[in-house]
Amino acid sequence: MNYFSSDFKLGILGGGQLGKMLLADTRKFDIQTLVLDPSAEAPSQFGCNAFYKGSLMDFDTVYQFGKMVNLLTIEIENVNLDALDKLEEEGLAVFPSPKTLRLIQNKGKQKDFYVENKIPTSKHLRFVDLNDLKKSLEKDELEFPFVWKSAQFGYDGNGVKICRSALDLVKLPDVECIAEDMIPFKNELAVIVARSVSGEVKTYPVVEMEFHPEANQVEYVICPARIDEKVAQKAIDVALKVSESFNHVGLLAVEMFQTEDDEILVNEVAPRPHNSGHYSIEASYTSQFENHLRAILNLPLGNTSSKVAGIMVNLVGEEGYEGQVVYENIEKIMAIDGVTPHIYGKRQTRAFRKMGHVTIVNEDMVEARKIAEEVKNSIRVISV
Amino acid sequence: MNYFSSDFKLGILGGGQLGKMLLADTRKFDIQTLVLDPSAEAPSQFGCNAFYKGSLMDFDTVYQFGKMVNLLTIEIENVNLDALDKLEEEGLAVFPSPKTLRLIQNKGKQKDFYVENKIPTSKHLRFVDLNDLKKSLEKDELEFPFVWKSAQFGYDGNGVKICRSALDLVKLPDVECIAEDMIPFKNELAVIVARSVSGEVKTYPVVEMEFHPEANQVEYVICPARIDEKVAQKAIDVALKVSESFNHVGLLAVEMFQTEDDEILVNEVAPRPHNSGHYSIEASYTSQFENHLRAILNLPLGNTSSKVAGIMVNLVGEEGYEGQVVYENIEKIMAIDGVTPHIYGKRQTRAFRKMGHVTIVNEDMVEARKIAEEVKNSIRVISV
Repeated sequence: MNYFSSDFKLGILGGGQLGKMLLADTRKFDIQTLVLDPSAEAPSQFGCNAFYKGSLMDFDTVYQFGKMVNLLTIEIENVNLDALDKLEEEGLAVFPSPKTLRLIQNKGKQKDFYVENKIPTSKHLRFVDLNDLKKSLEKDELEFPFVWKSAQFGYDGNGVKICRSALDLVKLPDVECIAEDMIPFKNELAVIVARSVSGEVKTYPVVEMEFHPEANQVEYVICPARIDEKVAQKAIDVALKVSESFNHVGLLAVEMFQTEDDEILVNEVAPRPHNSGHYSIEASYTSQFENHLRAILNLPLGNTSSKVAGIMVNLVGEEGYEGQVVYENIEKIMAIDGVTPHIYGKRQTRAFRKMGHVTIVNEDMVEARKIAEEVKNSIRVISV
Repeated sequence: MNYFSSDFKLGILGGGQLGKMLLADTRKFDIQTLVLDPSAEAPSQFGCNAFYKGSLMDFDTVYQFGKMVNLLTIEIENVNLDALDKLEEEGLAVFPSPKTLRLIQNKGKQKDFYVENKIPTSKHLRFVDLNDLKKSLEKDELEFPFVWKSAQFGYDGNGVKICRSALDLVKLPDVECIAEDMIPFKNELAVIVARSVSGEVKTYPVVEMEFHPEANQVEYVICPARIDEKVAQKAIDVALKVSESFNHVGLLAVEMFQTEDDEILVNEVAPRPHNSGHYSIEASYTSQFENHLRAILNLPLGNTSSKVAGIMVNLVGEEGYEGQVVYENIEKIMAIDGVTPHIYGKRQTRAFRKMGHVTIVNEDMVEARKIAEEVKNSIRVISV
């Protein structure tokens, strides 16, 4: 198949920042792209060959969109899977497959899948609704503390709550959910696996999420993780096992916990380019976005190793500001060597909205970490 | 001025591959762009916010385009300068300035400028037309051999001819021209200077053009040049002097000869991102395109040093092929670590048309050079 400057058309479901960054590489290779997103303001409206506004959850919209392309991928998991099933049945290549997406869309099914495939993960129980969970507590099958997770549609910490007592149950929505054992962990790690149609596999180095010491919020994604070589190898082995179990095609970001006694437990996965791989644009020989493309097009995978140390800082809207965004002090951070801001293209900021990220690269990790802190303390995402 | 996700609009005259690669960085920063190009098939038609089809040489077209933007830049020198003059008079920021473009558009004026500013360059004579040149030969003011150059509209070796005898004059067009001394040189070098509105200056490392031993054609652009440190410093000093003399804003690519006795002579300049800087996308901390943007927006310049060694191979249409392009063996070269093809987005190939380039990066220059040769010998730009 000839993808370059040809009639071949790649369809992308979702037009957010992940799609936007993916488009940078389809442009580089001159591969035609069609994008579907519900918002006319989607960051991916520019840089594709054709943009369609429409619901990702509507069967007909997704199905009709799929009929226009030669290959379909996603940049968000919450899409109409029945449409993808039908398109796949009719012969369209869909990566990741709707089967994988169905497992991942539901956290209960995802956890069961890990257990079935002997992939290390924290213990969990599944509940059809909140009442079901409460009954389990009454019967002492479930005990405080535990981590409550909505089975569907959670993202970026939404749909997750640590429950220490009955008081914490009061505000929980009445939806299908799971309860997981609370695991004391040293580190939150992630490994991105690229796996092509023909089964070629490469892994990116293990990255580490560094949390703010007080606020329970990821501050930095650090590549490579500052962990023991043996633990890193274990994390990579687990990630590879997950990818193989899913028979996944494209990128699979595997989020994991490193426990107090250096066990690796899988938390969850994302079958696409991922926030934890943004550093790769500047730090890696081949970015995660280019490797996602290479994988789904069954081209040889690119080198996943790093040229330099990389740290990523998310730019999220500051609390108390809403409206036309201003990136205060962006000039100040751009004056520092090795600092690259990525602005996603959302005009309106609001509290905690992901507006962009900044990558810091340096030959020396200690120096990179120092600069990352300077960046974090300088730039503010506020409104006019 | 707030450029990021704002109402600010950057206009780009020209929509070729240089514009296309520049757009990758305007997207990254979410800076609004308008592009003007005579071809509806221009590579920059995607990735900008609005594309306008129109002549770059027509006063009204360029003037009206300029009235829609807050800042104007170019990716090609041959644009209507009277329109730029008027726009500048009316207060629009135009970088590079029409004054600089006027000097550069005419090779005679450009050479005179070097002489006036004591910038080392080969000796030259200017002629209003071919007859004027012939008269100079008759009077023995000019002697064979010399390098004939059309004063205007030459590019990529067009408008240049080595004249060794009267026979070589036969096919020359009757246009304004210059004759330059033929300089035996060891190396053809280039230095890209970034200079911002406020006068901040950074230079990229010296690159070397390696020629095919038989065909007189650049095969590889190599960064850093494999030359003596002292010669490299001399080349950088000369490039800085050129940039300062022009009082240039944006990127200035300075092409130079290293003579047999290690003198540096300026050949010509390009006031924009340049083929000799394409390696920077993968090899440098900050690409030439990002630094062009930073310079004209008066943002701090990015680090121009390299993470790794970089070599660029141009992809030009093979002789004997015309029509819908095919990149034969592109999968083969993509299987090699550190190899990134850039496909410009031209559907139709023809002999010697610049269709793309390939960057090879590696920690080790010797290894990079070996891989570059493998790339050069593998990929073919042919037609269906």
